[in-house]
Amino acid sequence: MYDGIVQELIDEFGKLPGIGAKSAQRITFFVLQTQHYDPARLSQLLATVRERVKFCESCGNVSEQTRCTICTDPRRDQSLICVVEEPKDIVAIERTRQYRGLYHVLGGAISPIDGIGPDDLSIAQLMQRVGSNTVSEVIIATDPNTEGEATAAYLTRMLTAIAIPVSRLASGLPVGGDLEYADEVTLGRAFEGRRKIP
Amino acid sequence: MYDGIVQELIDEFGKLPGIGAKSAQRITFFVLQTQHYDPARLSQLLATVRERVKFCESCGNVSEQTRCTICTDPRRDQSLICVVEEPKDIVAIERTRQYRGLYHVLGGAISPIDGIGPDDLSIAQLMQRVGSNTVSEVIIATDPNTEGEATAAYLTRMLTAIAIPVSRLASGLPVGGDLEYADEVTLGRAFEGRRKIP
Repeated sequence: MYDGIVQELIDEFGKLPGIGAKSAQRITFFVLQTQHYDPARLSQLLATVRERVKFCESCGNVSEQTRCTICTDPRRDQSLICVVEEPKDIVAIERTRQYRGLYHVLGGAISPIDGIGPDDLSIAQLMQRVGSNTVSEVIIATDPNTEGEATAAYLTRMLTAIAIPVSRLASGLPVGGDLEYADEVTLGRAFEGRRKIP
Repeated sequence: MYDGIVQELIDEFGKLPGIGAKSAQRITFFVLQTQHYDPARLSQLLATVRERVKFCESCGNVSEQTRCTICTDPRRDQSLICVVEEPKDIVAIERTRQYRGLYHVLGGAISPIDGIGPDDLSIAQLMQRVGSNTVSEVIIATDPNTEGEATAAYLTRMLTAIAIPVSRLASGLPVGGDLEYADEVTLGRAFEGRRKIP
């Protein structure tokens, strides 16, 4: 235990995800002792970030405006909607530079164990979007785990009922990976989804 | 890349030691989206910590007063000084509850590669302390690595020259460890420092 404020700062850093007691202590001493580091910037950002960051009223992405930079970009294909769980998934997909449509952030996945049902996610907003716009395809990009798959199945049912074409990201072996280390479910999916070599 | 302030906050978290790009993103979304978490406390602490935290003018430990709680504690043995590299080493030693003397924080270890020589550490202050007080023993508790050993050797030479008894923390097998996983240097030290069973 340290005196007063030093311990308080260690405790506050320890509340952040992935930062244990040792890391919190290391970060605190870094903040205290590093000449070229200025903690004022982080302090200011933390003080204002919640007021300044809104969520796009159209897709739910993080944004400093009422609509995000993707939704307001006229070069994006307005007829494609890719459904993701969290805003950080959008960044991951954008890095591939392969997708030029719009997004829809659900805010999580269906998980009865955690008490999260369809009504806790922005599924009604998604149905409204596909209902009032000309949408040629909805690509479901929820996580390839139990909750993500359940959410994908639920969305597929809802969307096919109103005749919207739906697709799901492919599951299979990660590129650069090693076949012998792939788990059996992934390997099974890779077989199911095999493609004919042209 | 995110819009404006979100990316700025990710970048600021990424400047802290041990926090990579992925962790910085995860922490930022935690700060943005977690209802029961209030970033104001961390913001305030970061804004004031450098002004409020001083370093004890006697031993160099962190302190909110001019002298730390250990140096001003009358129950501590004033004739013992344990020399450590950093204030966090004091916390580690205090947790053992075995040592009841005072400390001296060097502020690092001698490391020619990093351009840190004896004059960059508080060695002159240590020599002044042992010169002007009745010191029965100086216990050197620098890290058991190259820099720590070099520093210990340097301090031993300085202190024995003025006839101050010096000791060094024992090196050997960690308690609860496994002999076959010990590196050869540690195992060699354990042999050198072996004790006769009474």
